[in-house]
Amino acid sequence: MSNRQRDASAPVANSHFADRLVDAVRRTGTPVLVGLDPRYELIPRGLQTGDANGPREKAQAFVAFCRGVIDVVADLVPAVKPQAAFFEQLGPAGMAALAEVINYARAKNLLVIVDGKRNDIGSTATAYADGYLGDATNSAWGADALTVSPYLGDDSLTPFIDTAGRRGGGIFVLVKTSNPGGKTFQDLVADGRPVYRHVAEHVERYAADTAGRYGYGLVGAVVGATYPDQAVELRAGMPHTWFLVPGFGRQGGTARDVAGAFAKDGLGAIVNNSRGIIFAHARREYATRYGDARWQGAVEAATREMIAQLAADTPAGVLRRES
Amino acid sequence: MSNRQRDASAPVANSHFADRLVDAVRRTGTPVLVGLDPRYELIPRGLQTGDANGPREKAQAFVAFCRGVIDVVADLVPAVKPQAAFFEQLGPAGMAALAEVINYARAKNLLVIVDGKRNDIGSTATAYADGYLGDATNSAWGADALTVSPYLGDDSLTPFIDTAGRRGGGIFVLVKTSNPGGKTFQDLVADGRPVYRHVAEHVERYAADTAGRYGYGLVGAVVGATYPDQAVELRAGMPHTWFLVPGFGRQGGTARDVAGAFAKDGLGAIVNNSRGIIFAHARREYATRYGDARWQGAVEAATREMIAQLAADTPAGVLRRES
Repeated sequence: MSNRQRDASAPVANSHFADRLVDAVRRTGTPVLVGLDPRYELIPRGLQTGDANGPREKAQAFVAFCRGVIDVVADLVPAVKPQAAFFEQLGPAGMAALAEVINYARAKNLLVIVDGKRNDIGSTATAYADGYLGDATNSAWGADALTVSPYLGDDSLTPFIDTAGRRGGGIFVLVKTSNPGGKTFQDLVADGRPVYRHVAEHVERYAADTAGRYGYGLVGAVVGATYPDQAVELRAGMPHTWFLVPGFGRQGGTARDVAGAFAKDGLGAIVNNSRGIIFAHARREYATRYGDARWQGAVEAATREMIAQLAADTPAGVLRRES
Repeated sequence: MSNRQRDASAPVANSHFADRLVDAVRRTGTPVLVGLDPRYELIPRGLQTGDANGPREKAQAFVAFCRGVIDVVADLVPAVKPQAAFFEQLGPAGMAALAEVINYARAKNLLVIVDGKRNDIGSTATAYADGYLGDATNSAWGADALTVSPYLGDDSLTPFIDTAGRRGGGIFVLVKTSNPGGKTFQDLVADGRPVYRHVAEHVERYAADTAGRYGYGLVGAVVGATYPDQAVELRAGMPHTWFLVPGFGRQGGTARDVAGAFAKDGLGAIVNNSRGIIFAHARREYATRYGDARWQGAVEAATREMIAQLAADTPAGVLRRES
């Protein structure tokens, strides 16, 4: 995938990220976000290259696998979320694969949210923002958005917001994460409310300050599907903030659990599913019907199943796919 | 630098990280940590490759520059800290450069702490730990240690600790960061003490549980030089924890400010300086004497100056270089 091809087909990157997200969710009629979390031992056997493979071969298998997933989901969902850790685990070859996957997804008109949970102080945060947010003409990775950790505070978030504003990019700040241990520090109570609520207040303020034409800002929040009550509470207090909701499927979150993360018009939340979709060929309900050889059929079936579940049990049911 | 060369000269990687750090600080007689934060516009002009350079050329310049710094400091200090963000800003080519720099530093017998401030939940945290911690035989990046963000909580830290234990690696968890905005969430008061103290308590417990033969654990803490009082308070409560202290020099921290981060025997803290050392050729006090052409002379002079400052004004003065 050359940069030239990609530039021609990528969304106009300097328009507002939240506007592009609203448009993409409305176009596809669903808030399903497909997580690209490749793990060598779980990808279909036909894409594994043998026992003696090194990081380069594994990285090539990751690219082939992710392209195969993207080919299936590009027409069904608004966005994908590559998990940086699994690419990074393979070293430089894995990072080259991540870049290929990002380019391929954007060329297929998908929004790309890199899940890197990056952050640092001041000018170093600017380096991350500059590297990740933008398109192939102005940033090294060319992602639409990046997940960001809040622990370093306000002056670590503003460099991302500034760069995102110039580049048409967005960030999703960790607020209430889906893992059981998320409570260790996020649920500490200060001034009468948990730490994650403090983070949420900052995020909502940044979102309101950067709101686009649909009222959503370019700063979003990560709010785990495994905490439905907190999602309701946060949704009420964060009207300008898009939620990225992990924890659906394998981590235990159901469509009913994530319903509270949405606004009444079906916008405001995208719900991630990684393993439940990309490794659907290994799920009991699909293994016999599709199995390893027809793994892309399983990806499509699992994606359509999740789209239907969210349509049935969440406010996203009011969305209609634009034909 | 081939893997073969590196394996031959690297420290034995499956021995305890904190033991190796103590040994390295004692051998060199100083706790100076040199931060490798390459920025293209600041590296000596002789290493810049012209105006029309792309990420590959810049990445090559980063490698040449960092190797030049390492050649100077390898005999003077115990460890270096490459800042992932500046390499990542260049995309895949930058990440390949980071790997080269790590390999080169380890081959020169330096401990390498990658400043990535990474983290994620459970099995994804394991992917980061697996990718970064170890040596060329068992991990993609082969770093001795990695900085880690605590927001995701206990179950995001334990995968790093498990992997670090098996691989002879270590982590430094963000506790009290050096930036002014660090207070936004770190200083929120819960149960009578700030959030960073809660994080500190968890870190100290992990450190105590993993203590090596000198009493220090493989989990360290990032404690900014810009908060001297907090460093004293944290040092008192964290006897098993190595501190990584950023914020010296350009960010305003002095040797007196960091004195409280040390134990009485001069151990327990390593003090980072990035720009003040690697870009010393541009500092007023060195520019005339060394300038651009003799930039490595400026790196050496600045390193020796900082070694002398810490020896004069901190408990590290009791350390004696082993001849």
